[in-house]
Amino acid sequence: MKICVLPGDGIGPEITAQAVRVLNSLDLKFEMEEALLGGGAVDATGNPYPEATQKLAREADAVLLGAVGGPQWDSLPREKRPERGLLGIRKDLNLFANLRPAILYPELANASTLKPEVVAGLDILIVRELTGDIYFGQPRGVREENGERVGFNTMVYSESEIRRIGHVAFQAAQKRNKKLCSVDKMNVLECTQLWRDVMIEIAHDYPDVELSHMLVDNAAMQLVKAPKQFDVMVTGNMFGDILSDEASMLTGSIGMLPSASLDDKNKGLYEPSHGSAPDIAGLGVANPLATILSAAMMLRYTFGLEEQALRVENAVKKVLAQGYRTGDIYERGTNKVGTREMGDAVLAAL
Amino acid sequence: MKICVLPGDGIGPEITAQAVRVLNSLDLKFEMEEALLGGGAVDATGNPYPEATQKLAREADAVLLGAVGGPQWDSLPREKRPERGLLGIRKDLNLFANLRPAILYPELANASTLKPEVVAGLDILIVRELTGDIYFGQPRGVREENGERVGFNTMVYSESEIRRIGHVAFQAAQKRNKKLCSVDKMNVLECTQLWRDVMIEIAHDYPDVELSHMLVDNAAMQLVKAPKQFDVMVTGNMFGDILSDEASMLTGSIGMLPSASLDDKNKGLYEPSHGSAPDIAGLGVANPLATILSAAMMLRYTFGLEEQALRVENAVKKVLAQGYRTGDIYERGTNKVGTREMGDAVLAAL
Ligand SMILES: CC(C)[C@H](C(=O)O)[C@@H](O)C(=O)O
Ligand SMILES: CC(C)[C@H](C(=O)O)[C@@H](O)C(=O)O
Repeated sequence: MKICVLPGDGIGPEITAQAVRVLNSLDLKFEMEEALLGGGAVDATGNPYPEATQKLAREADAVLLGAVGGPQWDSLPREKRPERGLLGIRKDLNLFANLRPAILYPELANASTLKPEVVAGLDILIVRELTGDIYFGQPRGVREENGERVGFNTMVYSESEIRRIGHVAFQAAQKRNKKLCSVDKMNVLECTQLWRDVMIEIAHDYPDVELSHMLVDNAAMQLVKAPKQFDVMVTGNMFGDILSDEASMLTGSIGMLPSASLDDKNKGLYEPSHGSAPDIAGLGVANPLATILSAAMMLRYTFGLEEQALRVENAVKKVLAQGYRTGDIYERGTNKVGTREMGDAVLAAL
Repeated sequence: MKICVLPGDGIGPEITAQAVRVLNSLDLKFEMEEALLGGGAVDATGNPYPEATQKLAREADAVLLGAVGGPQWDSLPREKRPERGLLGIRKDLNLFANLRPAILYPELANASTLKPEVVAGLDILIVRELTGDIYFGQPRGVREENGERVGFNTMVYSESEIRRIGHVAFQAAQKRNKKLCSVDKMNVLECTQLWRDVMIEIAHDYPDVELSHMLVDNAAMQLVKAPKQFDVMVTGNMFGDILSDEASMLTGSIGMLPSASLDDKNKGLYEPSHGSAPDIAGLGVANPLATILSAAMMLRYTFGLEEQALRVENAVKKVLAQGYRTGDIYERGTNKVGTREMGDAVLAAL
């Protein structure tokens, strides 16, 4: 069980360190090796996804990532920016299925900007396609035309790309409340009309799952209006980028939300849904729980260790119940701790 | 002052009727003529934007639209669907600047799913580009490739398209709190890198406006987290479709929100931000206030009648203060009225 650990930038090293401690405490035989990704990788090698990292990541069964990016790399040319490293590893490892849960922990209900009755018990899984769409479509660029610049990108999906993410979403829905909402913009975009057609075709394989369709603008509204109507949502890379961030913010505690990005053999990259938070990097105050929960997803999806995954998830629930809080989720009457102390608490709960 | 009235489908005819009564009560010399758009137009002529409507709309100074669409037209081929009529008239009249306010009326604060302190006083103006982007980009379609279907669309913006919507947004910000947030996805899409570059270029013409930039995924989050940080937002057609709907739902009372779509000579199409609500069509219970407020925008933007616009807006505020509510915004202790009675109340308040 080989894990490639990519601490990345900003708070990345601090939070991955705690997730690594948790994994190591489980008495399983993980082989872990660290490598560079993102801004730190650019600084050291000139490449945000260096060859040494590529080799290690390809050989590993799973990748644990902290976060990438920071203001000091914002002015670099596109191909050297930290997020190129992230897009690069996703594409290189063929991690087409991005699973992003948006779960509201009862202890953290106050953190949401939405009224308690609207979000209490929220538990949505967003399945976002991650290696296609306008993110990678060709042609793309900026050209001169009639004496002015014209920028262009291509949204593109093939039937087989839609089908494979569709199967992942239907199967996820089967394990949950058996409701799948596919999000598109079929009234305007032919590409997403094909998306809808293919979803309808594969629905025949899952008679136990109730498939619905929603236009992306309406989905953005419904997430605000009545988010608990959703169980699993499936959508393309671009719409998924927007809707999964919107959904995660409904909880008000994005420091709690993990994610998994899988290929078709359950190899996966696991990372928190939040960013690299350069403003608090190195201070030892970042919340490591999203990364620890990402490690739990790794146990479940890549290694098939459902029981161990649940153990970690329950330990996280326990530390919340015990009142431990990092600054981002702190409220009066709870016990404010730093990154490492939070890791200690999870280890103790295990 | 020629107005082309397009009642459209669903509740469209009921709500436009009230806006027409309001306009006629102002003792200005409007010439109004009705025509077909959307589903009704397809039924009558086979075309969602028939030639007679095209002629009338081109000759008019302003267009007042109810809403288009309904389930009975969902299975028609793309080019006959009601929303093609809407896209058609936008493009035909060159209505590139879509202004969508998201305002929370104090009397309706409870309607929001967000906590009162998060949305109290909310007043955002979204400026959405409306005739470009992936909505109209070529090439587009579904083709066969290696034995499977592949769907594709093209996101495209020229410098001049970005510049003209940028100027509209900066000028709108100058009349408000002088803060403009431009939304893009420059870290992934070259097309929106050009968007950002051009916004930065034209910012030099508006030293009194503070320009900021936000990635679209972050914008979707920030609208949920702290919507009052925004004054004016400007973005492309696709992102604007999603974000303006999300923003309007923050108020919880989308039945109150108007919109304007303008060309470069202040000719405009005015319509409520909500849809055709087929479920309550013909029942006389729909909320006409968004359409009446759209008529107020028409007075302001097309006819330059700021004073009359304010009169209508103040009349709407007054009926809310008086406790009149249609079903969509009703709460205990207020006076529930139908569409026509609400129109009566506004006329009385005028
Ligand atoms: C950093 C960026 C390229 C990335 C994306 O857009 O996919 C991020 O927003 C995400 O959602 O993981
Ligand atoms: C009906 C549809 C084509 C339209 C759009 O996507 O522009 C609508 O959602 C809107 O925002 O006016």
